[in-house]
Amino acid sequence: MTENPSKSGSNSDSVNTAILMMNMGGPESEKVEDVHKFLLALFKDRDIIKMPFQDYLGPLISKRRAPNLKAKFDEIGGDPLRTWTERQGKGITEALDKKSPSTAPHKAYTCFRYSKPDIAHSVEQLEKDGAKRVILLSKYPQYSCSTTGSNLNDISRYCVEVKGHLDNNPPQRWSLIDRWPMSRAIVDTYANLIETELAKLPESIRAETILLFSAHSIPIWMVERGDDYTGEVGGTVQAVMNKLGRKNPYSLVWQSKVGPVAWQGPQIEKALEGYVNNGFKHFVVVPIAFVNEHIETLHELDIEYAKDLKEKLKFETFSRVPAANDHPIFLEGLADLIKEHIEKGETISAQMTRRCPGCTKPNCKRTREWLKRLDEINKDLAD
Amino acid sequence: MTENPSKSGSNSDSVNTAILMMNMGGPESEKVEDVHKFLLALFKDRDIIKMPFQDYLGPLISKRRAPNLKAKFDEIGGDPLRTWTERQGKGITEALDKKSPSTAPHKAYTCFRYSKPDIAHSVEQLEKDGAKRVILLSKYPQYSCSTTGSNLNDISRYCVEVKGHLDNNPPQRWSLIDRWPMSRAIVDTYANLIETELAKLPESIRAETILLFSAHSIPIWMVERGDDYTGEVGGTVQAVMNKLGRKNPYSLVWQSKVGPVAWQGPQIEKALEGYVNNGFKHFVVVPIAFVNEHIETLHELDIEYAKDLKEKLKFETFSRVPAANDHPIFLEGLADLIKEHIEKGETISAQMTRRCPGCTKPNCKRTREWLKRLDEINKDLAD
Repeated sequence: MTENPSKSGSNSDSVNTAILMMNMGGPESEKVEDVHKFLLALFKDRDIIKMPFQDYLGPLISKRRAPNLKAKFDEIGGDPLRTWTERQGKGITEALDKKSPSTAPHKAYTCFRYSKPDIAHSVEQLEKDGAKRVILLSKYPQYSCSTTGSNLNDISRYCVEVKGHLDNNPPQRWSLIDRWPMSRAIVDTYANLIETELAKLPESIRAETILLFSAHSIPIWMVERGDDYTGEVGGTVQAVMNKLGRKNPYSLVWQSKVGPVAWQGPQIEKALEGYVNNGFKHFVVVPIAFVNEHIETLHELDIEYAKDLKEKLKFETFSRVPAANDHPIFLEGLADLIKEHIEKGETISAQMTRRCPGCTKPNCKRTREWLKRLDEINKDLAD
Repeated sequence: MTENPSKSGSNSDSVNTAILMMNMGGPESEKVEDVHKFLLALFKDRDIIKMPFQDYLGPLISKRRAPNLKAKFDEIGGDPLRTWTERQGKGITEALDKKSPSTAPHKAYTCFRYSKPDIAHSVEQLEKDGAKRVILLSKYPQYSCSTTGSNLNDISRYCVEVKGHLDNNPPQRWSLIDRWPMSRAIVDTYANLIETELAKLPESIRAETILLFSAHSIPIWMVERGDDYTGEVGGTVQAVMNKLGRKNPYSLVWQSKVGPVAWQGPQIEKALEGYVNNGFKHFVVVPIAFVNEHIETLHELDIEYAKDLKEKLKFETFSRVPAANDHPIFLEGLADLIKEHIEKGETISAQMTRRCPGCTKPNCKRTREWLKRLDEINKDLAD
């Protein structure tokens, strides 16, 4: 780690610390060919999709789904992921320049899984910028093989195959923040967002309003393999409820199931139907695993449930808490998380020394070898 | 609430506050007929078991299983549940007499679901003792319809049908502590127990030892109905990992699946097998949802996995953290929890104003009506 107090501030020319904002990405534009390209990359990823004849069926399904997904993006005015990621990166690095002057200047790089700018683009840029240190920051608060895991497998492929990290020490010091399900960044932000949303409701219904924490579901075969995600989402929900003083009834539910196989439930629409049958009418939905607006919040929650399902089931209140986006507590919290990571001198968390108990994937094995190597390099440097 | 500072101390004749220690119970003795009687009660409970021809199949299965279960109890020297429950009750009430003199003397009553002493026995005793206040304390840190829910349905049946609580105010002030998944009682106790267990291992393997948090599983149909249990267990695990500083890799796994239907996974034996296949050899098992030793810890974990499975899979370390039992942090923590409950003046938690989203059971509906009534009575008294 190079001390660089004289160059603190993000306006400096040369970068000291690169923060790689890992996320899935989205179509590069709302054109149907870009939506198709994005879906093709997604359906090719065997880390998250398992189907027979994948090389044949993947392109077919992508082609069939593209116009429909394009229409949804049109309805919400385009995919907001890149804009939010860049805005968050700016907020975090500005805060970090103040909080951690010895590693400043910090600069954020967007590092998407299924679209540009991807890991190759990020590394080219940060090399040009002369960064001495790279911190991979997963933008998924809770770890899943289908999100952070897939991102990391893509990054390790690039770093091992293209950059030769296993054979030659990379010119930067690399480290990883793989999850933060109990961090103030996520817990305090959502507690604050929920309090703000509840305060908008008439006092007469506030106490009986049900908080529906909704997270993207994953297939049961992934849960059975030992994916950490569902347990960590449970952790975030419990920590938020504690912070709120448990003043409202709540449920943890799951959304966005696709395809015919079994997924983690209960699904949000079933839960809503059940609650309505039992006489409940007021809901505040909390997208607890989404840190920025997404098609799952803007279309699925705000259009399919808030409008279409509300009309069908006749519930009265369906208010949706915004995603963390650029909430000041969120950006400050992530900056603090990175600062603590730097101060601790940790390369990878203990959890990243193992794989899911049922994992047999060579990609995941390679990722662990690469992470172990980064850890060894950093330990050698520290000696 | 009667101020009674002069009578503090559990040796006093008249009781001010009764703490009802809710749990499932076990066979009254190791005689095969008592084991059979216990199984019969269990298989009759439609809150936790759903099978065709239950009235006919339940007794058949109970009869067939009794000798096998008796043999297991013999191997572990009998069911320790009652002894632990009484010892915990004594420790908690002694601490409470000091912490909350205005509600002393406190006395604990064992309130089992499937065996004596049950709710009828508890209420007869506490009435004889002249208790003015009754606090129902679930001994399950995380709430499930199959545990605390079933206990409460049994208690509400007795209180409504036998004691007429819906028509006449009960002579005592009743309230409920239904869950405490993020409490110091559970989180700090297990963090301490894990640290103690890890310290016993050779330093060379300590950091790579995997913490396997094992909880009793529940069927998927219960998860799908919206049971809070799995999410709350996730919360406890995350809070314990935070308290430990996340120094070890870990997994949340599930045990004790029975019958042919799908249960929450991954099952502990599958997870162990997978980890061994990936080269891991050292495990510390943490019974995160059991607060006292039980057949599931003493037989399933300590004999079936620690001995039989260890021999088969050839892992090297399988060390098991004890259940909370009478750990001083645990007893102090529960006493603090009750003290906070008293000071807050709460009758029931917000969560108990609703049922699982998919619930259609009349028993659960009756329980909510009864709890609501208790809440109204206490609010009237407060006015």
